[in-house]
Amino acid sequence: MDANLPILPDHPRVVIIGGGFAGLALAKKLRKQPIQVVMLDRNNYYTFQPLLYQVATGGLEPDSIAYPLRKIFQGNPKFSFRMTDVLRINPEEKQVETSIGTISYDHLVVATGSQTNFFNFADQEEHMMGLKSVPEALNLRSYILQNFEKATTSANHQTQDSLINIAIVGGGPTGVELAGALGEMKKFVFPKDYPDLDMNRMRIVLLEAAPKLLGGMSEKASSRALKDLQDMGVEVQLNAKVSFYDGAVLITEDGFKLPTETLIWAAGVKGQFPEGIASEKIVGGNRIQVDGYNRVNGYDGLYVLGDAAAMITPETPRGYPMMAPVAIQQGQQLGVNLIRTRKGQAWKPFKYFDKGTMATIGRNRAVVNFLGQTFHGLIAWLMWMFVHIMYLVGFRNKVATLMGWVYNYLTYDRALRLIIRPFAKNIRIENYDKIQ
Amino acid sequence: MDANLPILPDHPRVVIIGGGFAGLALAKKLRKQPIQVVMLDRNNYYTFQPLLYQVATGGLEPDSIAYPLRKIFQGNPKFSFRMTDVLRINPEEKQVETSIGTISYDHLVVATGSQTNFFNFADQEEHMMGLKSVPEALNLRSYILQNFEKATTSANHQTQDSLINIAIVGGGPTGVELAGALGEMKKFVFPKDYPDLDMNRMRIVLLEAAPKLLGGMSEKASSRALKDLQDMGVEVQLNAKVSFYDGAVLITEDGFKLPTETLIWAAGVKGQFPEGIASEKIVGGNRIQVDGYNRVNGYDGLYVLGDAAAMITPETPRGYPMMAPVAIQQGQQLGVNLIRTRKGQAWKPFKYFDKGTMATIGRNRAVVNFLGQTFHGLIAWLMWMFVHIMYLVGFRNKVATLMGWVYNYLTYDRALRLIIRPFAKNIRIENYDKIQ
Repeated sequence: MDANLPILPDHPRVVIIGGGFAGLALAKKLRKQPIQVVMLDRNNYYTFQPLLYQVATGGLEPDSIAYPLRKIFQGNPKFSFRMTDVLRINPEEKQVETSIGTISYDHLVVATGSQTNFFNFADQEEHMMGLKSVPEALNLRSYILQNFEKATTSANHQTQDSLINIAIVGGGPTGVELAGALGEMKKFVFPKDYPDLDMNRMRIVLLEAAPKLLGGMSEKASSRALKDLQDMGVEVQLNAKVSFYDGAVLITEDGFKLPTETLIWAAGVKGQFPEGIASEKIVGGNRIQVDGYNRVNGYDGLYVLGDAAAMITPETPRGYPMMAPVAIQQGQQLGVNLIRTRKGQAWKPFKYFDKGTMATIGRNRAVVNFLGQTFHGLIAWLMWMFVHIMYLVGFRNKVATLMGWVYNYLTYDRALRLIIRPFAKNIRIENYDKIQ
Repeated sequence: MDANLPILPDHPRVVIIGGGFAGLALAKKLRKQPIQVVMLDRNNYYTFQPLLYQVATGGLEPDSIAYPLRKIFQGNPKFSFRMTDVLRINPEEKQVETSIGTISYDHLVVATGSQTNFFNFADQEEHMMGLKSVPEALNLRSYILQNFEKATTSANHQTQDSLINIAIVGGGPTGVELAGALGEMKKFVFPKDYPDLDMNRMRIVLLEAAPKLLGGMSEKASSRALKDLQDMGVEVQLNAKVSFYDGAVLITEDGFKLPTETLIWAAGVKGQFPEGIASEKIVGGNRIQVDGYNRVNGYDGLYVLGDAAAMITPETPRGYPMMAPVAIQQGQQLGVNLIRTRKGQAWKPFKYFDKGTMATIGRNRAVVNFLGQTFHGLIAWLMWMFVHIMYLVGFRNKVATLMGWVYNYLTYDRALRLIIRPFAKNIRIENYDKIQ
C-alpha cells in the first residue's frame, strides 16, 4: 500500500499525476507549504515539448530539453516522486491504482496532458510519426536519416523519392516549425552529407486542412509564415485534407499525390487521462470538464489541469486552447487556491493571461503575436529564442540549448545526426503504382 | 551490385569495414590521394569508446562522444559511406557481401574492432551489461536509474540491496573509471535524488581476477588507483574470480557474495570480424594474424587493423594490446604504405610508439604512465582530460564535452539522468536464499 511513501502527519496529501507544465507549476507553488506533494509520472523526466522538433532535426540533444523530475525537487522532504503507470482513479475511495500499488490522496490533480489525435486516421497510425515525446523525436531523427542512408544505396528514382520526401500534416506551430527546420536541413546539411543524392528532388510538403497556417495567430503572422516557408523551399498545401495514406503514398481529397514513407502527423491532440472518471464529465477533444477553479463537479478533491481539462465557462464555451501557457497558469492558480484553503480563505477563479503566441520558421525568421501586435523576422526570432530559453527548466539546459543554437547559427549545421536506435515502421509498397 | 557506389576510373578502391579509431585514421590519411575510399559501418557514427562510461553515468550526452561519419568526410568526392551489415568477405573474388549488396574492392581493410568477451560466462551474458557501444551505455544509465526507482517503492531491505548494489567485473581502465564515476554518483547525486533510500547500504564492488588493478600500468599507478577508489567508497576485491551469477546474486570462487541485479562485465574483449577468412589465420583472443604491415598472409589486398588484428612478431608474440593508440597508429601506417605503393616505394613495417596509458578515478584523481613516469592526483587528472578532449572528433564535441566537465566539476552533479528507453533485463530471484 502507498508505494512506500513517507507518512507526514498533519500534511494533507496532494497527488499530482503528470510532471508536465501544469503539474510542475503546481508542485512548485506548494513547495514551502505544510502539504505533502506526491508526483506520479510514467517517465522520470519532464519534457519541454515545444522544442521536441529540434531534437528530431538534430539541432538539440534530448538531454537539453528534458529534465529529471527528482532533480527539480531535491532537498524538499515534503515532495515524493514515483515513476509509475497510473492504472485507474477511484475518486470515491480517494485512491489511485498504479503499477506500484494503491496510493491514497486528499487532493488528486490530473495533469496528464494530451496525445496525438489521429482523428479518422487512427487505423493508419502505425504508418505515421508523432512528435509528442522524447522517444518519438529520436525515432523521427533516426527514421529520416535511415531513409537517406537507404536512398543512397538505391539506383531507382522512385524508391529514392519515397524515401527522401517528407510530409507534415498540420499547419499549427509544431508543423510550421518542423517544416522550417527540415527546410534548413535540406538546404544546408543533406547536400553535404549525401552527395550521391540529388537534393532538388527532395520535397518537404506541409499540409493544412484550413485555408491558412497557424490558425490561432493573426492574418499577418500566417501569411508571413507561409511566405517564409516557401522561400525556404517548403511546399505548403492549404485547404488540403488527407484522404489516403498507406505508409508509401499520400493522397489528398483534391487529388494531390506525394510518394513518401515519412508522414508526420501534427494535426491535433486530444486529452488523455486514466480511467475512473464518469463518462458524462468527458467533453469534446477527450477532455474532462472542470469548473472555473479546475474542479470536477461532483467529486471531492479532484482537479484536472491543462490539456486534459476543458474549463467551460460562458467566455470559453469550448475550454481554453491546449497549450503550455494555459497549463502553467492553471497549475499556479490551483496552487494558490490550495494554499488559500489552508488559510481559511475563499478560492479565486482561474483567469487566463494571454502572453501571446509565437512560432519560429528558420534562421532570423519567426512570427510573434504579442500585445495585439505582429512581429516577424529577426526581432521575432530573438523574442522566440529568449522566451524558450527562459522557460527551459534548469541552468544546465538553458546553457546547453543556447550553446547549441549559437553553434547551429554560426555553422549552418545540425550536428546531432546519430542513428542511435534504428526505428522500424511498417511500410507497404504495393501502392507505388497509384502515383504513376 | 556495388550498393550504388560511384565508379572512379583510375582510382583503386579501398573498402574499410568499420569506422572506429583504426578505420578513421586510415581514411583520413588517404583523403587527398587518387584513391576511392568506401567506408562500411553498421552505425552511421563513430564512437569514442573511452568515454562511454561517462554516458552511462550521466556525465556526458551520447551526442558529445559520438560523431556522424558522413560529417567527417563532407566535401570529399572520393569518399563514400554506406551504413550496412557486412555478411561475409570473399577474399578470392575480392568482394564483400553486405545487407545492401555485393561490393568489390582492390584493397580490403578489416577494422571491425572487438566485442565484450564473457569467457566461460557466455551463458550468463543475458544477465550482464556490457559497455562497448552507445546503446549499451544508455541501457546501463537507464537500468541503474530504473532500479533506484524500483528500490524506492519497496519496503524490503533485501530487495532494495539487490536493486541498488552494483558489481563491476574487471579492473582495467573501463572498470576502474566506471567504478570511480559510480562512487561519485553514490556520494553526490543519489542521496539527493533518493532521500527515501539509505545510501550507506549501497555497495559498489569492483572485482579483479589478478592481484592488482590496471594490469597494464605501473605498480605505483595500480596501488594509487586502489587507494583512490577505496577513499571514494568503492569496495575492491582483488584475486576475485566470479564463480556464479544468475542476475540476482554474485558469488566468487573465494566465497564472496553480493546481492545485485546489476553486473557490468568489463573483464575483457575479443576480436570481431565478418566470416570468410580461413580459420588457421585466427589466433588467441579471436584475432586475425597479420604480418608487420597489417597484411593477412596468403590473401591479396587484405589487411586487418586494431583490436581485430594480432600482429605477431618476435617482439610481440601475442600481438599488441587491444587499445586505441595501437589502432590509430596502425591505421595511419597502412595509409602511409598504400600511398607508398602508388609512388612505387617499398612498404615500411609498423612501429608502435607507446604514448603511455592513463585512467581517471574521480575529481582531481587519475593515474598516468608517461615516459616511464607515474603521475597521479590533479596533474594526472588534467593530463587525462587534455588528452581525451584532444582525441575527440569535431569542434562541437570538444566544446560540449569540456562544458559538460566544467559543469560536473563545479556542481558535483551528473545531470543527465533521463530514462529515455527503459531497459529490460532477465532477472531471476530464486537465488536470493543463497546469500542468506
